[in-house]
Amino acid sequence: MRCEVVAIGTELLLGQIVDTNSSWIGEQLALAGIDCHHQVKVGDNLPRIVAALRQALDRSDAVICCGGLGPTQDDLTRYAIAEVMGVDLLLDDTLADRIATMFSSRGREMPANNYRQAEMPEGSWAMAQQPGTAAGLVCPVGDKVIYAVPGVPSEMRPMVIGTILPDLRQRAGEDASVIRSRTVRTWGWAESKLAEVLAPHMEELDRTGHATVAFLASGWEGIKVRVTVKAATEADADAVLNDEVRAIAAIIGDPVFSTRDEPMEKVVLDLLADAGLTVAVAESLTGGLVAARLTQWPGASEVVRGGVVSYASEVKFDLLDVPVGPVVTEATAAAMAQGVARRLGADVGVATTGVAGPDELEGETPGTVCLALWIDGAAEAFTVHLPGDREQVRQFSVITALDLLRRRLGAR
Amino acid sequence: MRCEVVAIGTELLLGQIVDTNSSWIGEQLALAGIDCHHQVKVGDNLPRIVAALRQALDRSDAVICCGGLGPTQDDLTRYAIAEVMGVDLLLDDTLADRIATMFSSRGREMPANNYRQAEMPEGSWAMAQQPGTAAGLVCPVGDKVIYAVPGVPSEMRPMVIGTILPDLRQRAGEDASVIRSRTVRTWGWAESKLAEVLAPHMEELDRTGHATVAFLASGWEGIKVRVTVKAATEADADAVLNDEVRAIAAIIGDPVFSTRDEPMEKVVLDLLADAGLTVAVAESLTGGLVAARLTQWPGASEVVRGGVVSYASEVKFDLLDVPVGPVVTEATAAAMAQGVARRLGADVGVATTGVAGPDELEGETPGTVCLALWIDGAAEAFTVHLPGDREQVRQFSVITALDLLRRRLGAR
Repeated sequence: MRCEVVAIGTELLLGQIVDTNSSWIGEQLALAGIDCHHQVKVGDNLPRIVAALRQALDRSDAVICCGGLGPTQDDLTRYAIAEVMGVDLLLDDTLADRIATMFSSRGREMPANNYRQAEMPEGSWAMAQQPGTAAGLVCPVGDKVIYAVPGVPSEMRPMVIGTILPDLRQRAGEDASVIRSRTVRTWGWAESKLAEVLAPHMEELDRTGHATVAFLASGWEGIKVRVTVKAATEADADAVLNDEVRAIAAIIGDPVFSTRDEPMEKVVLDLLADAGLTVAVAESLTGGLVAARLTQWPGASEVVRGGVVSYASEVKFDLLDVPVGPVVTEATAAAMAQGVARRLGADVGVATTGVAGPDELEGETPGTVCLALWIDGAAEAFTVHLPGDREQVRQFSVITALDLLRRRLGAR
Repeated sequence: MRCEVVAIGTELLLGQIVDTNSSWIGEQLALAGIDCHHQVKVGDNLPRIVAALRQALDRSDAVICCGGLGPTQDDLTRYAIAEVMGVDLLLDDTLADRIATMFSSRGREMPANNYRQAEMPEGSWAMAQQPGTAAGLVCPVGDKVIYAVPGVPSEMRPMVIGTILPDLRQRAGEDASVIRSRTVRTWGWAESKLAEVLAPHMEELDRTGHATVAFLASGWEGIKVRVTVKAATEADADAVLNDEVRAIAAIIGDPVFSTRDEPMEKVVLDLLADAGLTVAVAESLTGGLVAARLTQWPGASEVVRGGVVSYASEVKFDLLDVPVGPVVTEATAAAMAQGVARRLGADVGVATTGVAGPDELEGETPGTVCLALWIDGAAEAFTVHLPGDREQVRQFSVITALDLLRRRLGAR
């Protein structure tokens, strides 16, 4: 079973919108065990949409086309499909009523334009899922099929999950296998180091065919190790995945911060909650980013007392009781961590100070960063030299500080 | 002149990486006045890459293929191009030296694999820009051309700007017209309201053909109004754009926060700097996001004193001298703004407090947010009801607070 994705919209070609829909659909297809060899973007142009659909049907069993189902004259998808099917468009009364009801329930008059959205190629049917005025269409072409879904992600996704994937699986018949992935998240090692350490295990996997392993560099979120297995049933796939994830995490060791694809700050929050500890953050170069990450999760208020963004040096001296002097030092970071924990009544303090760039500070080059923890009544400080521009230095500082706390909590 | 983009990599089809390169290239082509009718993604498979390149050359004058130039066995782009050109790959000694030097200058031995990156289809040449070990290639095919660039954005972009666009413009000859865009950024109006207010002006533009206007909804960054003009020269285009941007900003009025595509916090920083004012931020539900945005810009230290993330209520009372009581109130927001300005010695205070969700707080529903400014010796507080999930409520709170400060500074 092979399925192609055709994304429709001139704004995609002009780069005004990034086509994240095709990526998401590609991921869903892979997880469902369906091959996807081509993804194509084409503008709001009838002959070119028709040609793209014909080519896609030639080389694949199914086509998902995304976008161009709106009510305006630019929206050509239904016309293109009718042409490929060699049929007329018919106004579907049920669909027209459904759309009119959506408008009236919001207290709005339905513009005449929106009747276009109730036109369907003869022989097609509307998907059950319809969060907006654009209906998803299932359009058989011989023994193949074109699915049309709207370009708004929140409207498209339930249609793919609820109609398209089950339909594709059914079309694939008994041969359908389940493909499942899980992501082990790491921080601290380069991809080459991970590859080297995992090489013997990956050779073993190559031999047995149990699973495949891929590395996904994710910038300041670290490197993801993605384990994928193919099996007859979900239960079989889960069993193999559980074993594999455990084995791989054991081989990598300390750089693994999550075996459930959780981001670093969520792992840290959970470790703090488990230990019954509260935290406060003192931030200079990171300017609030550490606190913002920690507070983005529901339940953060159980653990996070708050923080001080001591951007100006005097704020460090006045509010955090840091001794007056140079601020890009381990001693300052340590004093900040202790000061913020004391001021905010937290068990644990985390501090960042350093040079984000582009200019030097106190003779130190951009990327020089001092980080500190105040925990169990003592301060621990570290100096790191981080690469990249201002944004990268700030973000690497955040993840490095959180990772220090993670490792320290894990070692308690 | 028509140019197609072929993005190469199985990870793109699997949705492990979103193909932002094609979007960016599409935008650059549009700005250079070059048509792009198709963008295609294809996996790391030699016959399919060859077929994609042949089809692209059939229907376009030029092809930019992106990715697959690395040193591993998955990297097939150079082999596919050689097959399309009907030539052999030759090891280029100059290129091999260049790559070897990159390794030795970093104190590293060059792995034998990387010699692959010095192989070039006979008759092609390497681009001058080469930030990494992968060289960009210019590969003539009859009177058409294939450009190959690496998939790493920071390596790809200078090659497109420095080699491909000038080469395409030269190939387009004297007919080349210039397309230029500028973005007016707005906050506070829905897209339909903007469209309604601008409708008479847009009808006038339709008639004269001077410019086109598009709306780009950008979530919590507001709605962008993009003005595009086509002209014989850059100077002509700039002149029309200047007039148009001025006219459109005048029609929209106060919701316009930038006519130079600047983000809200940069506009606020500049307004504060111009007024010679410093700022401090007290954040509850936004948890540091306001401070993080303000400090992401170089030069923020001239203006930003810092902030207090008063996530726990006691931090509001103890550190910001907020009277003990319910915290989701305008009075609390006002006291936070005044308190943080006083504590951190800033001229202006900004405060956020409210319910991010998913749970209620003090009987208030998620999305209920109180914002305050302390400026010119007085507090001003506002209550807003924001839509969306926790992340959206937090981000809408940030932009709304910054916009309040922008309007207040503009009205001084």
